[in-house]
Amino acid sequence: MISQKTLPDFVQVLASKEPVPGGGGAAALCAAVGTALGNMVGSLTVGKKKYAEVEDRIIELKAKSDALQTRFLQLIDEDAAGFEPLSKAYGLPANTDEEKAHKKLVLEECSVEACKVPMEIMERCCEAIDIIEEFAEKGSVLAVSDAGCGAVTVKSALFAASLNIFINTKGMENRDKAKELNDKTEKMLADYGKKADAIFDMVAAKLKPAE
Amino acid sequence: MISQKTLPDFVQVLASKEPVPGGGGAAALCAAVGTALGNMVGSLTVGKKKYAEVEDRIIELKAKSDALQTRFLQLIDEDAAGFEPLSKAYGLPANTDEEKAHKKLVLEECSVEACKVPMEIMERCCEAIDIIEEFAEKGSVLAVSDAGCGAVTVKSALFAASLNIFINTKGMENRDKAKELNDKTEKMLADYGKKADAIFDMVAAKLKPAE
Repeated sequence: MISQKTLPDFVQVLASKEPVPGGGGAAALCAAVGTALGNMVGSLTVGKKKYAEVEDRIIELKAKSDALQTRFLQLIDEDAAGFEPLSKAYGLPANTDEEKAHKKLVLEECSVEACKVPMEIMERCCEAIDIIEEFAEKGSVLAVSDAGCGAVTVKSALFAASLNIFINTKGMENRDKAKELNDKTEKMLADYGKKADAIFDMVAAKLKPAE
Repeated sequence: MISQKTLPDFVQVLASKEPVPGGGGAAALCAAVGTALGNMVGSLTVGKKKYAEVEDRIIELKAKSDALQTRFLQLIDEDAAGFEPLSKAYGLPANTDEEKAHKKLVLEECSVEACKVPMEIMERCCEAIDIIEEFAEKGSVLAVSDAGCGAVTVKSALFAASLNIFINTKGMENRDKAKELNDKTEKMLADYGKKADAIFDMVAAKLKPAE
């Protein structure tokens, strides 16, 4: 399974002409990495006297992060599995009118289906950004830079996954469905792009000297 | 070595309270992943008749990407190795005036040293963004979304690494050196953040329907 590869093997197959992993799998990995950076802030907070008051909440957030990390790694494999039917559909013959109609129908179904994994990646990136925001606010100040790194990393996964939605809605016959998916995508990009930037800016402001 | 771990093992140790990997190692991994996404565009372009005219240049860009990917993976380990002396310096005793002076001196040296890996990650992210821009312009249009994913992914690495510079320049006694490092960092964030956004926007515009 792709999600079980070593880092160098993953990077190498990503760079190759193999159809998977692609942007979706890379997004899911970065989402897991960014979530783990938030989780690390939690790990460095738990057990510290100074943060005893927020410890219960930090433990809850850590458990949510653990679950998200596991899910993002699974999504690397699900994204790869989801690409296969679409790839096969593109290869269907289209010589006769019947073949053309059949291919069109299959491509339409596959395009709707192929949006599901990137959409879940995006939705879970939004959850991760909410969690990282809380880690940045409540967690150990000594680790705040890791929360900032986590926020920009999950944001990049959010944006990378969105391209895999736009590429699949582009050719859809059902424009109402396409618009519904695109609107949902644009809203997440706007709302959570802004939220991630705010976390990063807050962290950078804490680290930079007042010169 | 951290860079040889499997994806789940890397994510797990990142989330733990282990001092390394942290934001620097995560940035170097995302930089390798983003660079590989650009390289993938090249892999899907080479050998295609339609792109015969740019093939030599694409092969050159692929070789540069391969080298960058290897270097980014090495930087995961170098970032971890670079953290150790700083971590030890923080643990030095500071009871007498002599101990205090010694600790201050060692911390200053370690802080300058600890900027080197994140600075190299940033510089190489800028190289990677230039390469991805060319892949997006010259490579197969069928893979253009991967170039867009690559651009946002490397951009997140650039921004994540910058926090590891700001955190180390913050406490430096030598404010001229700190300013020099901060200014260089800010310039790369501004110039290459903008360039990565432009690549992403160009790709998104190609994929989105004109509604």
